[in-house]
Amino acid sequence: MSASPQHENTHEHLRLLAGNLDSGALSKIEAQLNELHPAEIANLLESLPLQNRRIVWELTNPELAGDILVEVNDEVRLGLIEHTDEDDLVAAVGSLDTDDLADIFEDLPKVVLHQVVRAMSNQDRRRLQSVMSYDEDSAGGLMNPDMVTIRPNVDLGVVLRYLRQRSELPANTDKLFVVDRDDRYLGILNISDLLTTNSKESVSNTMITDQKALLPTLSANEVALFFEDYNLVSAPVVDEDNRLLGRITVDDVVDVIRDEADRSLLSLAGLDEDDDMFAPVTRSAKRRAVWLGINLFTAFLAAWVIGIFAATIEQVVALAVLMPIVASMGGIAGSQTLMLVIRGIALNQIGTTNARWLLWKELAVGSLNGILWACVVAAITGFWFQSQSLGLLIGVALVINLIVAALAGATIPLTLKKMNIDPAIAGGVILTTVTDVIGFFSFLGLATVFLI
Amino acid sequence: MSASPQHENTHEHLRLLAGNLDSGALSKIEAQLNELHPAEIANLLESLPLQNRRIVWELTNPELAGDILVEVNDEVRLGLIEHTDEDDLVAAVGSLDTDDLADIFEDLPKVVLHQVVRAMSNQDRRRLQSVMSYDEDSAGGLMNPDMVTIRPNVDLGVVLRYLRQRSELPANTDKLFVVDRDDRYLGILNISDLLTTNSKESVSNTMITDQKALLPTLSANEVALFFEDYNLVSAPVVDEDNRLLGRITVDDVVDVIRDEADRSLLSLAGLDEDDDMFAPVTRSAKRRAVWLGINLFTAFLAAWVIGIFAATIEQVVALAVLMPIVASMGGIAGSQTLMLVIRGIALNQIGTTNARWLLWKELAVGSLNGILWACVVAAITGFWFQSQSLGLLIGVALVINLIVAALAGATIPLTLKKMNIDPAIAGGVILTTVTDVIGFFSFLGLATVFLI
Repeated sequence: MSASPQHENTHEHLRLLAGNLDSGALSKIEAQLNELHPAEIANLLESLPLQNRRIVWELTNPELAGDILVEVNDEVRLGLIEHTDEDDLVAAVGSLDTDDLADIFEDLPKVVLHQVVRAMSNQDRRRLQSVMSYDEDSAGGLMNPDMVTIRPNVDLGVVLRYLRQRSELPANTDKLFVVDRDDRYLGILNISDLLTTNSKESVSNTMITDQKALLPTLSANEVALFFEDYNLVSAPVVDEDNRLLGRITVDDVVDVIRDEADRSLLSLAGLDEDDDMFAPVTRSAKRRAVWLGINLFTAFLAAWVIGIFAATIEQVVALAVLMPIVASMGGIAGSQTLMLVIRGIALNQIGTTNARWLLWKELAVGSLNGILWACVVAAITGFWFQSQSLGLLIGVALVINLIVAALAGATIPLTLKKMNIDPAIAGGVILTTVTDVIGFFSFLGLATVFLI
Repeated sequence: MSASPQHENTHEHLRLLAGNLDSGALSKIEAQLNELHPAEIANLLESLPLQNRRIVWELTNPELAGDILVEVNDEVRLGLIEHTDEDDLVAAVGSLDTDDLADIFEDLPKVVLHQVVRAMSNQDRRRLQSVMSYDEDSAGGLMNPDMVTIRPNVDLGVVLRYLRQRSELPANTDKLFVVDRDDRYLGILNISDLLTTNSKESVSNTMITDQKALLPTLSANEVALFFEDYNLVSAPVVDEDNRLLGRITVDDVVDVIRDEADRSLLSLAGLDEDDDMFAPVTRSAKRRAVWLGINLFTAFLAAWVIGIFAATIEQVVALAVLMPIVASMGGIAGSQTLMLVIRGIALNQIGTTNARWLLWKELAVGSLNGILWACVVAAITGFWFQSQSLGLLIGVALVINLIVAALAGATIPLTLKKMNIDPAIAGGVILTTVTDVIGFFSFLGLATVFLI
């Protein structure tokens, strides 16, 4: 009867599983998997190399297969689907919620889809179409049509009896949606108010009318910020005519926040959060090659700038020794501004009104740090190469590059955002190209003019 | 009666506010603020430069001040507290929930704390002490002692009557906690089951006993993964003796996930997610200077490596032109592995068991891409400088550096994790130090041996 306080994490599950895989104790693996929730099994599958992943997938309880497919990332899902019989797939995804089915719809083989859709009720089919008509990363794509609606003109006792007639409520039902005869959204009745208010009271007197509803076109990021701001468990989605389409629940919002976090982190390195950590070597290599190729192009651009000043370097080889310092300091300073602005954009905290303020501030910070570190670098350089003029030169180049870095770090993400390009993906590459080129050009250019 | 479907985001609030601030329409600002939720006002305050922030703060409804202080980030909070009268502060934070008060406790002036604690009931004071005895980033620090507990031996009708006697339930109450006489956790009664089950049934027959409880020492990150896996709205926290201490609700978990995402993104650039975007220039400059200083040290290390080969560069100036390519490609390839491993560690998906697999995979990917891009770079270089041996040289150096990059990208974060250092903060700096040093050393070293 007593519940176990021991919550074990993926780490521990993984260790246990690896031991059983090594010793080939398949029945032990089955027993271990039976203790786990679909999301935990999904995590485990993502953490396993391909061969082991297949073994574990085959030992998984087929009843959980549908939910596991929803939880794993896109590439892992495709791999698992490839290794599952069509009949098993139909059974696995046939029982999924409409919004979950919509999420994985396009990954499923046509034959399977055909069978699943044919077995659906007309209502479910309409719901699926409705969810799938919206972008996956929008309120419409996140919403679930499965919810409890009530009319305003009944009393709470009627609502309680109505709920008791149902054997269960949709998951995360913290509120009921009050609609009129035409399904127009009027307000919400919180379950907690239903429980604490006299059952003779009417719904219209108990309901809350100032809970804002979301339009289906709102981006998933905006939905997440909305849930964060209002500490919501669920929120209604309505169309332009205020007709209730469905609701979004916090469990899906949590996934949105996690996915976006993963995306902005990984996209800095040109990676996709939906890639499989254990994808075959050739596939991973191919994917990453693209990013390396883009960066190679910018590296050759920098090399070309250095090449312009080859004759100068030939005369003063110290320039070659010192030039990476100017470029690298610019890159670091610029990325500080860049990250700050990328985060501000993601949180909706930077708009045209305060962008100018921020730019001035970043320029001031860049100048101050430029001057500070220019002095340090000039002193060390002067001492190292016994040349005050070389020290002065690198100092001036550093100030220039740090100011340019602040300017680039602030304007690049804002410009990309305006062009509807994710600043996290392209921002870093463009920034380092700018700071490398300006860094090398200012330092070597100044040297050519004043030193030779 | 009809609810507005229009949800406006911070962006639009900000634009409106900026207009009113410019025209000095203070009453309009007050009216605008009255429409907003504390979290939205907090967002707005974070988005405003210092002077405007103070104006808006003074126009804010004092009743919301406490909740706003909880929502803003640490540095902004300190600034707001500095500009608030002590009496107003006492009034503002006196009505906060225990867990919220605990979060901002250490930021408040001693005089204010003294008054607030004195006005508390004994029970609330004990609760505050209990929450504050745990680390802020642990289950104990996240939990709220405010929850509804019931006994197993009553029937559901009794529970319903008990709830009706309360005027309201704690926010996000999706389940009641069943405890024995000694407050030992026995299981949960879902509100949805309470609503759909016959009221003659007993709690013990309706409750769920397999919902795992969390220990207060569990890290906030683990709590977040647990909520994500199980799609929870709330979860119980128990001590070693299985005694119920409190509950964690999903709204706090959402904040944890957002904060961690911000932290890992910003810490890559040596920034803190609790810093104020509009902090005074000197303060921001000082903070960022530390990070620039650390990177300057590693840049000088790279320069020193180049310096060793100054004589070689003097003879073949093309080496100076090409050397940044080797270093930069290593840095990019390494950061791809680094990001993947950092994410895997954060999701608990990488342990000792699969780390070796991953290392081999990354080495294979690094080698493949090394060879591919070595060929491209060798061809371009050979053509550019009309020298096959220079092309061969840079190709070999590139393969070496990409393999080292894969090795470093995989092992650095795992090692830092073992040393309890956040891999996102230090990982990038160490990685680029390695790839710069090895890149310059291998290319210039090979050239010294084979070219001169």
